[in-house]
Amino acid sequence: MTGKHLIEDFRVPPGKRVRLTDFDPAFKGKHSKSHALRKTQELCASMGELQQKLFAERKRSLLVCLQALDAGGKDGVVKHVIGSMNPDGCDVANFKEPTPEELAHDFLWRVEAKTPKRGEIAIFNRSHYEDVLIVRVHNLVPKEVWSKRYDQINDFERRLAANGTHILKFFLHISKEEQLRRFEQRLDDPTKRWKISESDYTEREYWDDYGRAYEDALAKCSTGDAPWFVIPADYKWLRDMAISEIIVKTLESMNIQVPKPTVNIEDIRRKYHSAAKQDKHGEARHKRRTRT
Amino acid sequence: MTGKHLIEDFRVPPGKRVRLTDFDPAFKGKHSKSHALRKTQELCASMGELQQKLFAERKRSLLVCLQALDAGGKDGVVKHVIGSMNPDGCDVANFKEPTPEELAHDFLWRVEAKTPKRGEIAIFNRSHYEDVLIVRVHNLVPKEVWSKRYDQINDFERRLAANGTHILKFFLHISKEEQLRRFEQRLDDPTKRWKISESDYTEREYWDDYGRAYEDALAKCSTGDAPWFVIPADYKWLRDMAISEIIVKTLESMNIQVPKPTVNIEDIRRKYHSAAKQDKHGEARHKRRTRT
Repeated sequence: MTGKHLIEDFRVPPGKRVRLTDFDPAFKGKHSKSHALRKTQELCASMGELQQKLFAERKRSLLVCLQALDAGGKDGVVKHVIGSMNPDGCDVANFKEPTPEELAHDFLWRVEAKTPKRGEIAIFNRSHYEDVLIVRVHNLVPKEVWSKRYDQINDFERRLAANGTHILKFFLHISKEEQLRRFEQRLDDPTKRWKISESDYTEREYWDDYGRAYEDALAKCSTGDAPWFVIPADYKWLRDMAISEIIVKTLESMNIQVPKPTVNIEDIRRKYHSAAKQDKHGEARHKRRTRT
Repeated sequence: MTGKHLIEDFRVPPGKRVRLTDFDPAFKGKHSKSHALRKTQELCASMGELQQKLFAERKRSLLVCLQALDAGGKDGVVKHVIGSMNPDGCDVANFKEPTPEELAHDFLWRVEAKTPKRGEIAIFNRSHYEDVLIVRVHNLVPKEVWSKRYDQINDFERRLAANGTHILKFFLHISKEEQLRRFEQRLDDPTKRWKISESDYTEREYWDDYGRAYEDALAKCSTGDAPWFVIPADYKWLRDMAISEIIVKTLESMNIQVPKPTVNIEDIRRKYHSAAKQDKHGEARHKRRTRT
């Protein structure tokens, strides 16, 4: 973890075996909380400007997948990082337990429907990866079905990428102890208590099974087109800074071009604005100063 | 304009004839810009909390329609007011020129598809009202078709309201001079120039026709279930404060209830948390303090 940018530090290299025990969920390096919060704010401002250019260009798009175990911080990232973007042109799709209609189709059908339009950003809060995670851990389909899905996912993501969708996949990595602490905070919070269920706790018995399923998904599906990042997520401020930085660096690397005007700006100015200026120069100037 | 709250000042009373000349687009009353900006920030914070409760309750929803002439500030409201909400549970739908598929259906078909789910908020950037505005001004369908749409819209909105959707409709009212000033600012802004077209200017010849079409829509479709508000919009800070306040007052008036937990909180605490606490009390306490 010595790279200059977090984008390199946390990326899973294509084809590399992954052991989650090699990643410290409580990593914070030399970063301090106060500096990270300030940095995240700056990054979020840049993100907003880059989003506006992406929208103007209308050629490429961005897809961000958020995966984590329960209480891993997906909702927090949506609220604090994604929430800084313009809601127009940035859609959040939640992939929960599939409906009967969704189950009647191929597992990527509902996912395809939520991919971003050109110029836009889609956030997947959970994603098609659930179909090789919870589905595998709880044997919801036979191994011969889920085991083929890694290649199917890679094919799908390669096609999206070839058509202009940049893809970033974040695994928010928390420790088992931190999950329990966060559950306890929920118990203490009257506005969040309503969502607690006993299965939140019984699901913890599968912690290691989820770990192995994640290791396989990360290793098999971190590609050049659609990299996986393992984000240390015990510290929320480190997590938010890392994700903001990776999104901003990615958008910057796209070298987005705002299109040229389709009209001659000087013609328009002469034709529609000069007269008005001459007629009531004084008044218009005055008003322009006050109406801001 | 003497009511205590802007929600009363700007509401169009049901059944009342509307003359836009009675509404000053440059109204600011006794409000100052600095106070309004601070107030809007507070209102946006309340909005976020109320949105979270609405989401938790999952019984009712909110639909906000934004209508205005070009440069009236719809995008600004989306960015600065709506942008303060959690993007999860708040969708922005843009109704642009209908696609062939949309035109092959009834005019409310595409609108129905974007109505908010229970617990969520939908923002319509333009809306079904275009079908009695631009469609009427440019004779896109015969009068005998569009003239029936006011009742059809009222029926549609009444059904939504009866099913738990609270509806707010904002007409952002700017002056013709302010529109020209904003067009000129676009000419000066390299990041916004690309969207200028000559039709922005030629459409100004229909200013009065649009005014009459708006007056009819406001008068015929401001109902108890789905009120219209005429928002003075020459001053962006007044516009944003007014809309934030009306949204907040509306959500407050809904008396939203966060559901009760489905589990016994104390049982869960004893069963899953006490042991952990006893085992490593010191360490857990220490960690909780640092991981924030």
